[in-house]
Order: sequence, then structure tokens, then C-alpha cells
Amino acid sequence: MIRRLIPRCAPRSAAFIAPRRSSLGLFPAARQYSVSPEVASQTKLQDIDPTKVVVNKTGTPKPLLKAEDLVFGRNFTDHMLTVEWDQATGWQKPHILPYQNLSLDPASCVFHYAFECFEGMKAYKDKDGKIRLFRPEKNMERFNKSAARIALPNFNSAAMIDLIAQLAKLDSRFIPEERGYSLYLRPTMIGTQKTLGVNPPGSALLFVIASPVGPYYPTGFKAVSLEATDYAVRAWPGGVGDKKLGANYAPCIVPQREAMSRGFQQNLWLFGEEEYATEVGTMNFFVAVKNKQTGQKELITAPLDGTILEGVTRDSVLSLARERLAPEGWNIVERKHTMGELAEAANEGRLIEAFGAGTAAIVSPVRHISWRGQLVNCGLKEHEESGEVATKMKNWIEARQYGDDAHEWSYVC
Amino acid sequence: MIRRLIPRCAPRSAAFIAPRRSSLGLFPAARQYSVSPEVASQTKLQDIDPTKVVVNKTGTPKPLLKAEDLVFGRNFTDHMLTVEWDQATGWQKPHILPYQNLSLDPASCVFHYAFECFEGMKAYKDKDGKIRLFRPEKNMERFNKSAARIALPNFNSAAMIDLIAQLAKLDSRFIPEERGYSLYLRPTMIGTQKTLGVNPPGSALLFVIASPVGPYYPTGFKAVSLEATDYAVRAWPGGVGDKKLGANYAPCIVPQREAMSRGFQQNLWLFGEEEYATEVGTMNFFVAVKNKQTGQKELITAPLDGTILEGVTRDSVLSLARERLAPEGWNIVERKHTMGELAEAANEGRLIEAFGAGTAAIVSPVRHISWRGQLVNCGLKEHEESGEVATKMKNWIEARQYGDDAHEWSYVC
Repeated sequence: MIRRLIPRCAPRSAAFIAPRRSSLGLFPAARQYSVSPEVASQTKLQDIDPTKVVVNKTGTPKPLLKAEDLVFGRNFTDHMLTVEWDQATGWQKPHILPYQNLSLDPASCVFHYAFECFEGMKAYKDKDGKIRLFRPEKNMERFNKSAARIALPNFNSAAMIDLIAQLAKLDSRFIPEERGYSLYLRPTMIGTQKTLGVNPPGSALLFVIASPVGPYYPTGFKAVSLEATDYAVRAWPGGVGDKKLGANYAPCIVPQREAMSRGFQQNLWLFGEEEYATEVGTMNFFVAVKNKQTGQKELITAPLDGTILEGVTRDSVLSLARERLAPEGWNIVERKHTMGELAEAANEGRLIEAFGAGTAAIVSPVRHISWRGQLVNCGLKEHEESGEVATKMKNWIEARQYGDDAHEWSYVC
Repeated sequence: MIRRLIPRCAPRSAAFIAPRRSSLGLFPAARQYSVSPEVASQTKLQDIDPTKVVVNKTGTPKPLLKAEDLVFGRNFTDHMLTVEWDQATGWQKPHILPYQNLSLDPASCVFHYAFECFEGMKAYKDKDGKIRLFRPEKNMERFNKSAARIALPNFNSAAMIDLIAQLAKLDSRFIPEERGYSLYLRPTMIGTQKTLGVNPPGSALLFVIASPVGPYYPTGFKAVSLEATDYAVRAWPGGVGDKKLGANYAPCIVPQREAMSRGFQQNLWLFGEEEYATEVGTMNFFVAVKNKQTGQKELITAPLDGTILEGVTRDSVLSLARERLAPEGWNIVERKHTMGELAEAANEGRLIEAFGAGTAAIVSPVRHISWRGQLVNCGLKEHEESGEVATKMKNWIEARQYGDDAHEWSYVC
């Protein structure tokens, strides 16, 4: 029996109903939670103009670290990109300037009310030495959605991609040639209004910093073990768990530390009485099972119902699965699925594999999930660190990221 | 019929159960959501020591604004307080220094993952010119709880109150003598770790800024109208809505703007299918009704079930009500109450009044609530801007804040 966690929509007079986005119809007759984009988006003023960028190159280039010494997000390149915005004029001239501290009034609203959102994306060096981004338009689309949800300004995606490409090219010496290395790019937008009233920010700063990173698995895959987590809840219908807001991250650290204290690397975030499996740590979550009735192989992930981050890697995995696994007989499914289903499949030998999917690792294979005192085995043999689907996905996605598999997902800077 | 939105607690082996705080028993047989303080709190290192404060007075004191030109949180005093923390040594020497910008690496985790929490409190000048804080130990207790929930460090409350008192005294010339004026104090803690991994911050900054503020109602009370809001959800069980985290604020702005676009000043945040009335804007919410069965007058507010901010003003209102209204026959109740109940009481002439309660306004009387297309009248006559209970509460609390009613709640600096 599926119990409804989502309340019914009560009849109301039209005058007081906020405009709603269309839902995915996952909960027929369910209340639709959303915030109208009409009210969320700011009046269009001056947009970002990449032709007006002012480039101020560093006079003291940093020495390069050895490739093997790179740690995710710890070292940064010579330059950063900044674009200021204010509500009177819109976006100002972009600047590429030496990496440096930000100087902000202590009353700035980013410090008090979490007016902040970000993106994670990478630049790759292909075999011809060209710099490539991976599906940057998806990141910019999501960045704009995140910003609008917290009353920060929107911008022209193509203009921002152009600027990010300029930054990646300028700092391309930081990107090692070897496969698996890349330049992690962190576009971030913060509210800079320096008053304490809880109001829409009248000024903002968009900045991009870049950190050279090595392969997530330098010596091959390493499967993780998860703790199914119900005592803390990452996202809720009507909340902001589908947006890439800073607000979604700090609250996950203590539960992660609890999981680690019991020997698990990450949380598997469950939701509701049904114990839906939603996300793993900061990644989307996929399971491959054999259907109980038909025996057909299924690749399942949670649907974009407002509580799941719209992962670019998630979308890429689904797309490649539909293109390459479906013809082999796989059923590719976006649906709510529970921890109970997963454990049942494991107990019945029908759980093929499970993995997280995100920009940092591409895929992160899962060995065990601790749930209700049992350790659910996710299908890996003792000597295995990754299942077949996860391995294929990593290779397929990397081939497109590095341009070996020529595809529109790859954007040449 | 009450439908259960909260999932049942499933039996699990003890080994994998996170330690739980006791619940208020509001949902018998309900899952208890919480994060264990044992894991949340950091190992104790060097604590904050107010005797070691380094005071560096400004050489360019700011001119004072005219009292009538003060706007909440827009202008700040000459000085600020800063205390740095790092995981190797703990809290460093406190500094009182001229109000100035913060200089932070753009990779600082406060910009990306919302490692930030704050407090709101006030300093008052009494009739003898002494500076008084109001229940500062409550603020510091909550500040520590908020910090621990996002893996930021804790500190000795008495030490911080001492430092805040020093700052308030040093900048006391900014506090106008007149009743209703005060110095709004904003203690804030941010994570300053400058790496992009989603991990507990290894360094943090605690700072306090101060803004002279005028009376919230310079020309007397002005009742507000609310929009009952269900399409966006402020807080949920297992979330962080009971902590004063930046993360709880930015997501409320767009719904507030939507409400304003329809002529309502604030949101009344509803929760769940039952449409529980939880908070109003950034304040706790009180209703005064006549009991349907007994006719007894009741002052009702939502209980501290993990989705409600533990307001200091809320606590003060409850305490004063128990001390002074209960003997007059009032029943003072912390319980879940629904928008439906409230509308029913209004329709039956049993709704006496409704108000928000928070540090900024003390109390904020409510005229109407828009709900399902009806305008629920909250008991004020057309010419009235405040009900009797709200008016009394404002006077009673102010009397203690300004020291006219000598009481342990008032802390003389």
C-alpha cells in the first residue's frame, strides 16, 4: 500500500492561488508545490556581456602542483571571473582578474540569510590540447533556476558560458594532459546587499573560481558503503532540495559525520514513511535490478519531483542508458523506489548494482547500505569495486567529456 | 480525522540507530527526527576568553543619524567584534575593532554551502543611562545549538555575553535615550574553510555587528495581513527549521514577494495536509480564542516540535501569559493548531486576536489571513491596530527590556 505523504489540493478561489508550474503528474490529485517564476525572476535590465570583459592578468603566476598532489577544490588557478549586479542597472562589466579575496561588508546578506547558489562543472583538455566543457548549458539553466528561487538575478546562459570558456582557456596550463584530470569550475552567485532586513537582495556578485582536479579514483573504482538515513531529512515537497543552493549543504554535514562514525562513507537520504531512496550524499542515486515479475533488467532512479537535484550527470546517465542499454533489453525508469524494494531485490538476488552519479566522481559504485540493522549487499562481488553499468557509464561519459566520442554535449572553448 | 504526515518508527537494531533526543510526544508512535548533539559538538579546545579582548578604537567616529532616520539594519555603529576559530587551537583572542569589510577567500565554505548561523538581540538604554541586554543567555544557548547543527564550533555563553556587553557599552552613544529605541545586535558565525569539499569547516569566524534601531511602530501599532502559504514549505520534521541558520531565510523571500504582490505583508506558513499554522514571516505565531466547548479564553502557539524556531520573544510571551493572564482565567497552550480551527473560530466569533512575536517588533498584530479564497478576520475592529493581549505583551516585555520592571531577564552591561 502506498500511503500518501503529499497533501491533497483543496479547492480555492482563483484570486489567491499562486501561479503553478506543471507537475510531472507523479501524485495525481496531489497539491502542487512551486513558486511562480513570474514573480521569482527579476525585471530584465542590462544582461551579462562577454564582449565587455576586462582582463587583468596576474603578474605572479602560481607554480603548478604535481598532478598526483591535486586534491579536489583545495588549490585554485591564477585567475577568477567576477560580474557584479545591482537592481538599478543590472549586470556590470565582467572582470577576469587575479584570484583574490572578496572584500564584503559584514552586513552582506550572503552571511546572514544564505543568499547563495552555485554550480559544479569541469573543463577537460582533449588529445589535441583543446579545452572542452561538458553540457555547460545544463549548468547555466540550473544556475538560473537556483538564483530565481532565492530572488537573485538571472542572466544570459550563452554569455556566461563564453566567459567561463575564456577563464578556462586563460588558465588552461593548470589542466594536466592525462585522462581523468580536469579543471573543476565553480560558478557561484551571492547576495551582497549590506542591510539586515530580510528582503530580496538589491545587489549580487557572480564569481567563478577554478581548481585543477585529478581522477576521483586514481587507482581505479573504490565502492562506498552507505547509511540509510531517516532521522534527518534532506529535502521536502515545497522546499528547495531540487535547487543548487548553499542552504541544502551545511545541514547534511552532521548526519554525514554520524554515518562516518559508524563506518559508512555517505548517507542514503530516505524520504517519508515509505522510505523512498532519494539521493546519496551529494549525488543522484541509481539502482539496477531484475524486475520481480518479468525478470527484465531495469535501471531505476528517483523522478524530478521537486525533492531531487536535477543532476547533469543524472541526465547524462539516463540519456546514455536509453541510447545504449535499452536496445540490449533494459528498461530505463524514473520512478519513486523504496529502500524496502531495494532490500527485497538484494535478498532475492535481483539487485544487480547501485551507484551514485555526480560531476565530481561521474559514478560512485555502492557496496553496502546499512538499513534497519541489516547490511544490504548491492551486488558487487568481494573483489569487485564497480558493476558493469557504472563502469560503462563512466567510460561512455568520459569519452564525450574528452571529445573522443564526438558529441554535442562537448563544448569546445 | 487527523492524517499522519509523520512516518512511523520502524524497529531497527540498536547498532545502527543514531542517538535521539527525547520528543515532546506530540506524535505518539511517530519517528523521532534529530541529530545527536554528541556527534554535532566539536571537541573542546581553547574557549572564548573575554579578558583577552584586544580593543582597537576607531579614529574616525561616525556622525549620529537623527533618531527618526534610523532604518532597521541599515546603519551600523563604529565598532564590531570578531573572534576567529580553527580546529587545531580553538577560539583565538577576541577583537573589538573599527567596523570594516571582511576579506575572505572566494572558496570559503560560507559562500558555497551556507555554513552560517546568527542571532538577533537588542541592547537598551535605561532611564539611568545604563545599557541592558534582554535574556542574552537564551540567544547564546540557541546560537550554540544552531552552530552545532551545521558542524560549526560551540563556545562559552557567558564569555560571549561579556564581549557583546563590552561592544554595546563602547558604542552606547548610538543608542537614543527615547523609549522604543535600541541597539540591534547581530552575532553571526560563518565557516571560513577555503576548500570546496563538502566537509565540516576547519575554521570559522564569529562576528557581532550593531545597528541602532527605532521603534518598530513609530506611530503606534499597525496590524498586518497575512497570506496562508502552502505551496512553499518553510520547515519540516528532520529538517533545520528550528535553528537560526541562514539556510532558513533566503528560500522564504520569493513566497513573501508573492504574498506582497497580492497585497499581504507576510506569509503564514502552513504545514502538512492538516494545514497547521506554524510561523508568520520570520516570527512565531500566537492566537487568542474562546474554547468552543468551555468558552474559556486560550492563548495558543505551536509547540517546539523541531519545525518551529525557539523564539526568545515567544518564550517571554508564554512566560508572562502564565504569570499574568492565567490568574485571570486564561489557558496558555502550546499545541499544534490548524488554519481550519482558526477560520472556524473566526466564523463563530470566538477568535479574539492573533499576533506574531519576534525580537524586531516584539509583537505584530494580525488583521486578516487570506486562506482558500476567504479573508479570515482576526478579531480587530476596523479602527483597532492591536488586540488587548498583544498590547499588554508589548508593554510588559518593554518594561522588562528597559528595566522599569526590575527582573532577572534584564542583563545590565
